Amino acid sequence: MSLLVVGTMAYDSVKTPFGEKERALGGSATYFSLSAGFFTDVKLCAVIGEDFEDADMDLLHKRGVDTEGVIKLPGKSFHWKGEYGYDLNEAKTLDTQLNVLADFDPVLPESYKDAEYVFLANIDPALQGKVLDQVKNPKLVACDTMNFWIDGAIEELKKTMARIDLLIINEGEARQLAGTPNLVQAARTIRDMGPHTLIIKQGEYGALLFSGDNVFSAPAYPLEEVFDPTGAGDTFAGGVMGHLARRNESDIDEKVLRQAIIMGSVMASFTVEKFSVESLVDLERKEVAQRFRQFHAMTRFEEVTDIA
Amino acid sequence: MSLLVVGTMAYDSVKTPFGEKERALGGSATYFSLSAGFFTDVKLCAVIGEDFEDADMDLLHKRGVDTEGVIKLPGKSFHWKGEYGYDLNEAKTLDTQLNVLADFDPVLPESYKDAEYVFLANIDPALQGKVLDQVKNPKLVACDTMNFWIDGAIEELKKTMARIDLLIINEGEARQLAGTPNLVQAARTIRDMGPHTLIIKQGEYGALLFSGDNVFSAPAYPLEEVFDPTGAGDTFAGGVMGHLARRNESDIDEKVLRQAIIMGSVMASFTVEKFSVESLVDLERKEVAQRFRQFHAMTRFEEVTDIA
Repeated sequence: MSLLVVGTMAYDSVKTPFGEKERALGGSATYFSLSAGFFTDVKLCAVIGEDFEDADMDLLHKRGVDTEGVIKLPGKSFHWKGEYGYDLNEAKTLDTQLNVLADFDPVLPESYKDAEYVFLANIDPALQGKVLDQVKNPKLVACDTMNFWIDGAIEELKKTMARIDLLIINEGEARQLAGTPNLVQAARTIRDMGPHTLIIKQGEYGALLFSGDNVFSAPAYPLEEVFDPTGAGDTFAGGVMGHLARRNESDIDEKVLRQAIIMGSVMASFTVEKFSVESLVDLERKEVAQRFRQFHAMTRFEEVTDIA
Repeated sequence: MSLLVVGTMAYDSVKTPFGEKERALGGSATYFSLSAGFFTDVKLCAVIGEDFEDADMDLLHKRGVDTEGVIKLPGKSFHWKGEYGYDLNEAKTLDTQLNVLADFDPVLPESYKDAEYVFLANIDPALQGKVLDQVKNPKLVACDTMNFWIDGAIEELKKTMARIDLLIINEGEARQLAGTPNLVQAARTIRDMGPHTLIIKQGEYGALLFSGDNVFSAPAYPLEEVFDPTGAGDTFAGGVMGHLARRNESDIDEKVLRQAIIMGSVMASFTVEKFSVESLVDLERKEVAQRFRQFHAMTRFEEVTDIA
């Protein structure tokens, strides 16, 4: 089934303890599309500047991503510059140049409006709302956000929250949004704002899924070498939504949601192993299948039936 | 099978955002024994002062813990005073009074020397070594330590490490001990120091098991209310070692190790729900069995077989 993503396409300058790269392809919608494109038809809506390279657009086309909704504006593409320390957990933003992103007006092509699955990556919640005004009858709408919007656009964000099914945010954002350090309490508060399902990303520790009355705990893959965490969260979301769209069940049940989170974790584990989108570009289906099996093996344990 | 633990018995003064308690029963060996006592015969070796309450000793006896090896010395019991902030992740130590612990000389009663399973809680590695000199033919020796000994007694610690089978430490200690932020690399370095099996505790994120060529990822139980994290790590170790001793397999295999870690996580999840050892004292077998099943339910997912 077709999956619409609206977010950013960018060039990133990233420095980690293991190297640095200038103007590497990045952006939430880029990572998301290259990840979700593994599993389903992706329709991408974003804005780029005149400096955006054809070769980078080709990477998306090779994954079958529909880029009809990518708008080119005069000026430069969105640029982010950041640095990671040895623990690789949090990026220090050194510079942000919005460039064409400041004028982003997400107008969807006609062919996008029937999308059954929608992912609103981390952009201004007012724009997220504007996208939702254009899609006709989506089956599942998911959304990401960040501290910047929680701080500065909470009312607009709450309007978006009331219209979505699934929120995918990291634990710091969940605590901030709910105003409590306890994630179980935070999950309840957030789900009361609208999304019936919540995924809380915990970086190198994995992710938690809150759906129905259930909690599911997914580990992260223990990697020996993490080179660049940039885009891990968007790649994760791409795996989650890609799997959900591919399965396209009439009712999205717990079983498919759990698999989707593992799929997201699988995809994210590849992304961080190399700089920028390098891993996603080269990745093959058999590698994805193999790592999914490794996640399964890594979490199995047998019940103990003789305690009581 | 019998399980020997050598560690501390203490009175703690603990303040959390949810309340405070003066002179609450604590100490690594206390938490460990009350936890492991659920599963197997525990022989406890520690030192107490003249102020140690009979009622507190009775709590241990009620769990069937053998306290013949508890030495009473003139003076006061070890006292720790600490405070937790809202995130409850790390205790701020406000005061440490070693008292009788400064003169601790762990001499084992004859009846302790045949113990098949040994847990050396976090004490001076020289004393840990002295305990190992006394046990005759243990089947499995496990050990904990902390930054204080890694900083100040690394050579002595390395001697102990070379004599143990299983190390149970938290992730900060693992990184410090191995000198690398990456846990997979740290695990290899640490296992090269002696212990063939390594458990890395990650607090609210769960624990990782490195054994053979395998990694197992155990979640923590997502609790709605965490009152007091004190003793969680020792309770965890008690559940791990208690389960291993109870199973007492000729070769401790991956299956039993994985169950043991979950059992440790189950026990720790109860400890943090109340102050001090309160939860462990009242806990019933059926509650343990039920939460183990919840861990199982919380981690299950089905394989995806149609990717490649």
